[in-house]
Amino acid sequence: MAQATRVEHDLVGDKEVPADAYYGVHTVRAVENFAITGSTIARFPDLIAALAAVKQAAAQANRDLGLLPPDIAHAITGACEEIRAGRLTEEFVVDPLQGGAGTSTNMNANEVIANRALEILGHPRGYYEVIHPLDHVNLGQSTNDVYPTAVRLALVVSLRRLGDSMKVLADAFGAKAEEFADVLKMGRTQLQDAVPMTLGQEFTTYAVMIEEDRQRLNEAAALLLESNLGGTAIGTGINGHPRYAELACAYLAEISGEAVRPASDFIEATQDCGAFVQLSGVLKRVAVKLSKTCNDLRLTSSGPTAGLGEINLPPVQAGSSIMPGKVNPVIPEVVNQVAFEVIGNDLTVTMAAEAGQLQLNAFEPVIAYSLQRSLTHLRAAATPWPPAASQASRPTAHTSTTRSTARSDW
Amino acid sequence: MAQATRVEHDLVGDKEVPADAYYGVHTVRAVENFAITGSTIARFPDLIAALAAVKQAAAQANRDLGLLPPDIAHAITGACEEIRAGRLTEEFVVDPLQGGAGTSTNMNANEVIANRALEILGHPRGYYEVIHPLDHVNLGQSTNDVYPTAVRLALVVSLRRLGDSMKVLADAFGAKAEEFADVLKMGRTQLQDAVPMTLGQEFTTYAVMIEEDRQRLNEAAALLLESNLGGTAIGTGINGHPRYAELACAYLAEISGEAVRPASDFIEATQDCGAFVQLSGVLKRVAVKLSKTCNDLRLTSSGPTAGLGEINLPPVQAGSSIMPGKVNPVIPEVVNQVAFEVIGNDLTVTMAAEAGQLQLNAFEPVIAYSLQRSLTHLRAAATPWPPAASQASRPTAHTSTTRSTARSDW
Amino acid sequence: MAQATRVEHDLVGDKEVPADAYYGVHTVRAVENFAITGSTIARFPDLIAALAAVKQAAAQANRDLGLLPPDIAHAITGACEEIRAGRLTEEFVVDPLQGGAGTSTNMNANEVIANRALEILGHPRGYYEVIHPLDHVNLGQSTNDVYPTAVRLALVVSLRRLGDSMKVLADAFGAKAEEFADVLKMGRTQLQDAVPMTLGQEFTTYAVMIEEDRQRLNEAAALLLESNLGGTAIGTGINGHPRYAELACAYLAEISGEAVRPASDFIEATQDCGAFVQLSGVLKRVAVKLSKTCNDLRLTSSGPTAGLGEINLPPVQAGSSIMPGKVNPVIPEVVNQVAFEVIGNDLTVTMAAEAGQLQLNAFEPVIAYSLQRSLTHLRAAATPWPPAASQASRPTAHTSTTRSTARSDW
Amino acid sequence: MAQATRVEHDLVGDKEVPADAYYGVHTVRAVENFAITGSTIARFPDLIAALAAVKQAAAQANRDLGLLPPDIAHAITGACEEIRAGRLTEEFVVDPLQGGAGTSTNMNANEVIANRALEILGHPRGYYEVIHPLDHVNLGQSTNDVYPTAVRLALVVSLRRLGDSMKVLADAFGAKAEEFADVLKMGRTQLQDAVPMTLGQEFTTYAVMIEEDRQRLNEAAALLLESNLGGTAIGTGINGHPRYAELACAYLAEISGEAVRPASDFIEATQDCGAFVQLSGVLKRVAVKLSKTCNDLRLTSSGPTAGLGEINLPPVQAGSSIMPGKVNPVIPEVVNQVAFEVIGNDLTVTMAAEAGQLQLNAFEPVIAYSLQRSLTHLRAAATPWPPAASQASRPTAHTSTTRSTARSDW
Repeated sequence: MAQATRVEHDLVGDKEVPADAYYGVHTVRAVENFAITGSTIARFPDLIAALAAVKQAAAQANRDLGLLPPDIAHAITGACEEIRAGRLTEEFVVDPLQGGAGTSTNMNANEVIANRALEILGHPRGYYEVIHPLDHVNLGQSTNDVYPTAVRLALVVSLRRLGDSMKVLADAFGAKAEEFADVLKMGRTQLQDAVPMTLGQEFTTYAVMIEEDRQRLNEAAALLLESNLGGTAIGTGINGHPRYAELACAYLAEISGEAVRPASDFIEATQDCGAFVQLSGVLKRVAVKLSKTCNDLRLTSSGPTAGLGEINLPPVQAGSSIMPGKVNPVIPEVVNQVAFEVIGNDLTVTMAAEAGQLQLNAFEPVIAYSLQRSLTHLRAAATPWPPAASQASRPTAHTSTTRSTARSDW
Repeated sequence: MAQATRVEHDLVGDKEVPADAYYGVHTVRAVENFAITGSTIARFPDLIAALAAVKQAAAQANRDLGLLPPDIAHAITGACEEIRAGRLTEEFVVDPLQGGAGTSTNMNANEVIANRALEILGHPRGYYEVIHPLDHVNLGQSTNDVYPTAVRLALVVSLRRLGDSMKVLADAFGAKAEEFADVLKMGRTQLQDAVPMTLGQEFTTYAVMIEEDRQRLNEAAALLLESNLGGTAIGTGINGHPRYAELACAYLAEISGEAVRPASDFIEATQDCGAFVQLSGVLKRVAVKLSKTCNDLRLTSSGPTAGLGEINLPPVQAGSSIMPGKVNPVIPEVVNQVAFEVIGNDLTVTMAAEAGQLQLNAFEPVIAYSLQRSLTHLRAAATPWPPAASQASRPTAHTSTTRSTARSDW
Repeated sequence: MAQATRVEHDLVGDKEVPADAYYGVHTVRAVENFAITGSTIARFPDLIAALAAVKQAAAQANRDLGLLPPDIAHAITGACEEIRAGRLTEEFVVDPLQGGAGTSTNMNANEVIANRALEILGHPRGYYEVIHPLDHVNLGQSTNDVYPTAVRLALVVSLRRLGDSMKVLADAFGAKAEEFADVLKMGRTQLQDAVPMTLGQEFTTYAVMIEEDRQRLNEAAALLLESNLGGTAIGTGINGHPRYAELACAYLAEISGEAVRPASDFIEATQDCGAFVQLSGVLKRVAVKLSKTCNDLRLTSSGPTAGLGEINLPPVQAGSSIMPGKVNPVIPEVVNQVAFEVIGNDLTVTMAAEAGQLQLNAFEPVIAYSLQRSLTHLRAAATPWPPAASQASRPTAHTSTTRSTARSDW
Repeated sequence: MAQATRVEHDLVGDKEVPADAYYGVHTVRAVENFAITGSTIARFPDLIAALAAVKQAAAQANRDLGLLPPDIAHAITGACEEIRAGRLTEEFVVDPLQGGAGTSTNMNANEVIANRALEILGHPRGYYEVIHPLDHVNLGQSTNDVYPTAVRLALVVSLRRLGDSMKVLADAFGAKAEEFADVLKMGRTQLQDAVPMTLGQEFTTYAVMIEEDRQRLNEAAALLLESNLGGTAIGTGINGHPRYAELACAYLAEISGEAVRPASDFIEATQDCGAFVQLSGVLKRVAVKLSKTCNDLRLTSSGPTAGLGEINLPPVQAGSSIMPGKVNPVIPEVVNQVAFEVIGNDLTVTMAAEAGQLQLNAFEPVIAYSLQRSLTHLRAAATPWPPAASQASRPTAHTSTTRSTARSDW
């Protein structure tokens, strides 16, 4: 309460900001205006890093074009690199659900970078005469090109992580498939007995599905790497330097290590949410397949006496508060639930994308939020467990775990 | 009521079939069992043609492998060609919504083909000793490889038609963009005035969006062309001839003119609905973009006095039963509604795909039905209107139509 | 082609109408403008009857208020009664998906009624000087009060039919529950063996669920019976007679036998789609429960040797085109698919309701279409089969059918 | 790392628990097994309080029935009261997304209560010989009756809070309606000029819609107050005391102040998720209406020069990082996004409800999580802003704020 503060000013008026905060007045107002989820964008480190990468690319482009003095560009770049290294993440305090098409997220970044850059140059926070959040950090930019570019880049990074986990999971299923190559079982269609197959063939199927989904993920990533950076407010690049877009994009590719490329039509790219809808559709596909696989694992492990009883899942916790010894398929069950959540998120993304109007989609924050949650939760669901090698006696991965004593010899 | 009948027999018992029907006992039972929509699969001619193509490919492969006598193969092929030419479509009378994973659709095809082939050879309908729906027409096949292969092929054909219509629509928007290249207007973000742009730039955006969606559609088509033909019941190809799969697939590619190719893992392919989910996701994307475009057209044509009034849409009918002279944006409005329907259908497809169990998805009929409806309705919504060249005085396409006297000079 | 025609005129110009058609120029244009689904509103007889009921109520109110000459009112009323009896249904030819917020459906009704009323008075079709579709049939009305009122009434009628079928289904489950009252079985949680129960308890559950859903349906009906009739264009009842709303509503209640009542705020009621969203949510609930029940029936009937094998479903058709003797749970499977469709339709309704703007929701046609399809298909799915008492040897209802030789004595 | 620990034991084996933790081994395993969202159930205090209320009711019933020694019952009751007062919330550390149908949440509660009760009696944590999480705290209970009962009660409490906020919002709209009672404006249908109305009538509509939705919320609450407490594992109440269910339910009603009542069929109630689906459908309805209202507020405040410009929304923050002076409708925009999220959550709930199998729905955790988020976020979105009376100069509520200088005199 008696916290030390500094006073900053914006269009609405004066406002106290905590003295030691790197963020400033726009961030403080946004925190007050959007108290929706109780969470902050800091929960999505890939987004924070991507924002810093975009700001760094812009500063380097502006420096090359003579629009930003080298010392200021240097300080801004330094601040961005620290953020990308994860050092100031907790300064990103705005709610992921926000009005304003991401303006608050962009301003949060502008303010944190400006104040950290000021500090690097030996100035106090808030000394915006030297480095200004808008005039320097946001130079030549608009929320409407910075924010979607950062969100897209962050999604690609998160997507790569998900792909890696899916690869490990596919390999785990593949290893089980080899182990079970000679175990005969009944193949079923419509839950009715059909013709024989091996348990190995069944587990191979799980692996193949995941591998195919990884390919779809990578295709979705390619679409996300199209950037409208330089388009400013509506994609016309009004008042911008003619070489800025190309230069900033090239720097962003270099900084991020991803093949970011300029959009062919910046006006279309500024309002278009097609790549988000496409990614969301692919995540829904991943969810559908994982859920189907978990349904099968739960079904084939049903029993022990009055079920199919074809495989055993390793017990990871007591199953019941009332029935001693009962073990439940809790890992597949939680993966099912993540799948249902991802499918729900896809609908949120769809509605937000459809609601865009004229030259901008004001609802990208909820699109970003939903996709980031889907990617994070799916990755947690698909990640082999436990992580520590020291516990390697637990046989295999999260959803694929089956004991070697598979009850499959009927 | 006193209709002439013949008696056929199946697992359930004897059953009367209309004497002049090409379909048989399995079809009659299916019609009774599944009286859901009041419609029939004949409403989707692309599916009927695709079924006939698959059956023809199978017959030709079986003939080459010495499994089917040449004269019978010839008669079956002849019947299939007639069906592909649209001549027996009305004999396909089962409800598109059906249990049994498409068995009734497959049996409807088997029976119509057998009876028409019998007729070609000079035999009466029902004389299955010579050509049997199962032993000859369905030889080496299962519903579980025939039905998904036919559905996929049909969807590709329908998808190409949609793509063609979207091309014409994109061109119509492009032509308007040229016409409006010099018309200045206010660019808006979040419905608030932002910076100037041209009406031509706005219409170019509509064209670009559609073109990008067409690329996504073509990518989805590629996934659909993977076939499990030859996998029979669960993909193991049990009892099948080792060369059948390759041969039947090659014939299907030749007959259809589409690059149908064998799946890499037939067991996975038999149960996998990923390609359907992917297509549905892309159709949802198309719907989202078309809906957004129509929202903009309705918004910019709002008025005439108390609205934005930037463009005029041509009147195509009286707008009100009570306010004389009122003209409403009825064409964009119906396109919006088709978009909402397609997005709903995507959810149906998603749920059905997730509900697949073990070696088969029993719910492909509702997947096929939903996707066929989406493709058909989207095409109708995207098709330029009116079709007749004689009415070419009406300026342009369905959703893009604006009068040359655009009120855009504010 | 050389069809005899008459010429009618509207805001767009002259137009030929088939000479023997009861509909007129507005309908013909609508048919051309909205060629989306290939279907017509005639597929929903409850809607046609409800439209006629509303028009009849309006005519009777206008007659009482001295606004409509008694002979004309009498002729209009006569035409409406014929339509309600199903005699002119095929004259309702507009596509259920249409722009214009239902204007085309309303005009189709106005024209058919006017022409039939003219005929009753001995005049030729198109002789609108005597009875005009707008000036007489649509007197004191607007699409914006007539259409939603008719749609709501039609939905209530369809909903009552669904409720009746659900009652029969619940009773069928209840009868099976009694039959199975002493059959012990394993109760399962999370697909794992838990504690014992009876098969009768399990089937009682199915019956209880359906009964609870019927209560929810009836609650939804109550909301639908609120009418904005008399509100005209936006609910202000502009130019209307002060007693018209109350009088028309009272006549509608009398004609329909449903407790139709005036809305408390006509402006709100004219734009509000809350009752549709509520009904759709309840139908989704019904679908969820039916689908869960069918999942259970398919699961407990799995086998015959490698499944749970607790109950037998009666065979209604051969299950496979390749595996002789295989019988599949085709009835539960089709009910599952209807459920997925209904859930998808709920999304369509949701999006359409959200898209309403200012004083009207222009997207009620797709709301009506989706709800009517859901109600019709759900009813077909829930209806005991076969309908004919002569086949009563087939034991019970659609989804509940189990053979008396239930394999439940494990 | 060198944290002091105690060792506890379960079905899987020994496990270290932080020495000062009130939770125990089951909770620790659950935390490891379900690391999905990065959040904990502590984020939903209504759920924690409801769990404690259920446990307290059970202890009091068991005490009355002579099943639990009075001193132990007293200690358990004391611990529950502390939790209900919010004192131990942070000890509830399991992830809201979890397998096991809520077992981990139930065990977390059992352990925290047992250890705090032990402490009250002067014993160390983990001294379960005296008070055992299962044998005493969970006595006569199962996750399958405790968890749904607690979730339902928590939802009702959250729902009441939402209703209160909606009341304030409705009143705010009502106050604006009075203020604007004489401001004439154009009424619009299909975005086209229709007939005149007042701005007051438009704002009255917003208020009426919210009030109607509150009634629907209260109806949904009534369904949630049906409890299966006493049904234990599958609703048969196996091994339970015949008077327990009635007694526990009565205590729960007394403790909670809500009219909790026993279900009519405990087996059905144990597996049934209908009340959740119903609530979710109503929340979707609320979301649809709020979103429509926000769309209208954004539309009528569009401009300032090239828009409708009928109302002004108060500026709450700077609107642009590039266009000085631009003010955006950020509050309606964030409410729109919450609405999209709630609609997505409804789909998650729907899928989870449909996926229940046989005697239990294993997916209630994601249902609870989704509904709690929807209720919380909707309440935040609907809550008047700013909260402090000291800032009352800011005119009105969140989404309804309009300046008194409404530009409505066109």
